[in-house]
Amino acid sequence: MPDTATKRAKFESTWARIRDELLEHISSVGMPAEAVEWYGKNLDYNVPGGKLNRGMSVVDTAEILKGGALDDDEYFKAAVLGWNVELMQAFFLVSDDIMDTSITRRGQPCWYRAPGIGMIAINDAIMLEGAIYFLLKKHFRSSPYYVDLLELFHDTTYQTEMGQLIDLITAPEDHVDLNKFSLDKHRLIVVYKTAFYSFYLPIALAMYMSGVPASYTLEGKTIEPYKVALSILVPLGEYFQIQDDFLDFSAPPEQLGKVGTDIVDNKCSWCVNTALALATPEQRAVLDENYGRKDPAAEARVKEVFEAVGLRERYAAYEADVYGRLKDLIAGIPESTERGTLKRAVFTSFLEKIYKRTK
Amino acid sequence: MPDTATKRAKFESTWARIRDELLEHISSVGMPAEAVEWYGKNLDYNVPGGKLNRGMSVVDTAEILKGGALDDDEYFKAAVLGWNVELMQAFFLVSDDIMDTSITRRGQPCWYRAPGIGMIAINDAIMLEGAIYFLLKKHFRSSPYYVDLLELFHDTTYQTEMGQLIDLITAPEDHVDLNKFSLDKHRLIVVYKTAFYSFYLPIALAMYMSGVPASYTLEGKTIEPYKVALSILVPLGEYFQIQDDFLDFSAPPEQLGKVGTDIVDNKCSWCVNTALALATPEQRAVLDENYGRKDPAAEARVKEVFEAVGLRERYAAYEADVYGRLKDLIAGIPESTERGTLKRAVFTSFLEKIYKRTK
Repeated sequence: MPDTATKRAKFESTWARIRDELLEHISSVGMPAEAVEWYGKNLDYNVPGGKLNRGMSVVDTAEILKGGALDDDEYFKAAVLGWNVELMQAFFLVSDDIMDTSITRRGQPCWYRAPGIGMIAINDAIMLEGAIYFLLKKHFRSSPYYVDLLELFHDTTYQTEMGQLIDLITAPEDHVDLNKFSLDKHRLIVVYKTAFYSFYLPIALAMYMSGVPASYTLEGKTIEPYKVALSILVPLGEYFQIQDDFLDFSAPPEQLGKVGTDIVDNKCSWCVNTALALATPEQRAVLDENYGRKDPAAEARVKEVFEAVGLRERYAAYEADVYGRLKDLIAGIPESTERGTLKRAVFTSFLEKIYKRTK
Repeated sequence: MPDTATKRAKFESTWARIRDELLEHISSVGMPAEAVEWYGKNLDYNVPGGKLNRGMSVVDTAEILKGGALDDDEYFKAAVLGWNVELMQAFFLVSDDIMDTSITRRGQPCWYRAPGIGMIAINDAIMLEGAIYFLLKKHFRSSPYYVDLLELFHDTTYQTEMGQLIDLITAPEDHVDLNKFSLDKHRLIVVYKTAFYSFYLPIALAMYMSGVPASYTLEGKTIEPYKVALSILVPLGEYFQIQDDFLDFSAPPEQLGKVGTDIVDNKCSWCVNTALALATPEQRAVLDENYGRKDPAAEARVKEVFEAVGLRERYAAYEADVYGRLKDLIAGIPESTERGTLKRAVFTSFLEKIYKRTK
């Protein structure tokens, strides 16, 4: 099995071809050179610079489902789907950064803050989304699962926008109201805003590409593999985000690679919701007064409450519990060596990457 | 034939059902009440308040293609497609208004300027787009032309975004450079930003719904009806926009129902492009110095040049010429009474509504 850096380099090397397909198309329909150049900058600035975990997990899953290395054609098709997930992510990030008035992203100014861009970034974001359907049409139009891919992208986009809406109206940066927060609300935001597109989407794409049908029979039982995948990937995504929230509070910046800002940004994080559920009236008053303020002293008072309610122990208990539950769920998937069936390794590889990560 | 007001009232009466379908769905998947309420306001504020010409032309065209009144089921399906065009238009207008820093739209504040909305309008815009694919899935999933509808919406969205991009980088409101303008650039912007979604999309949707195939044979000739429709609707859309541009300059505000702002807004309008093509070096200097300035005296100097180069005569000649060309193109469509074939009346009804309109 090649190491992660080698796999990443191979996946990254397909970007230039995909970008060129997009630019050649808009050029061929008559777009002027300055528009083609603009779109090229938009694509290169916003799509390939992230961790690429979502995109690469399409390729990884397709390999696991095949039970061996993909041939060149299979690899490129999986990579197109992987880059489509990255395009979708870029579409969300470019627009979310405007909505959140964020400053930097991936170590560079957010696209809307790059010189000469401004609000054109909104149109640029939706052109990144448009690229997805151009690429699907170009590469998958004659596939029997073409409509499944289209619907999966539509459904996932809509779900993510719903998650973003709840997040925006629950936790606006400029108006703190902890009465709007709850662990249930947190779960809803996490599942809709993150889990569907980051966890279910890449795996389901690889499943369609690998010919996994809507249902099959194994050991006398009817399996609905997409439902099985969803039932594992949604709690897995929730676990990932809770961990992310906990690391934002607990990890030293030199380990995390950034300074956590969830408390000052009024984020509807697992930490504050758990603290709210455990707080005494006095601790609650401290949270109400200090959460979401751009003030290091206020942030420190919030952190004191987080420590006092025993957030670290709660997290350790949650992580041990969810890890056990997910392992059991995965172990419960009936498996066969037949092609077109689900494999437990799809999920274990994910789970082991996440479990006890420290950044 | 019912009059336009009756037809509009019937079309408008279907909105409540469509809006409720959208809200019931997001409620049924667990969205909290405040998110459902927010989405309902977004939909009602942004979708039904316009002239509804695009949406109604789906219904009108379906009736012409059937050769008689639609039954209730046919009417509702055509109305769903019509409202999908209006949803697409709302998606563009909400986001374009942010990009253009517009103040009002349809006699009310632009959505992003409505109280408490702000940049959440970006997510709201893309949820309006998401609604299209939810409704298509709900109402057309089992139709043989489902994929055609999906691809038509994808292609048209992408084309419109390309048109918006060229427009934004050719005519930014804050930087006037008439060297970027040309009648060719104007045509490209008009065709991509307006004609595809306003003229081709509604007609092609009605054609798919009416069972018009990709090609058929008539009088021994192979007809490709979607290509025929495109070949007429693109110049028709261009004519409509050129007329719009001309009215912005020439029509008295009391007739137009608004004050034209193309000159002060640095719009890449047919008027300025035609004037640029005709101007003497002295007139060109006046345009360079005065176009796109928020100053009534500068605007008046631009208007003097427009008059001096004979814009009114040019427009009259253009209109006479394009009307004749479109009539000839329409007359050239081979017609039959058979169902599933193109009818000239689809285009003549459009053309006669546009010809010599004064607002």
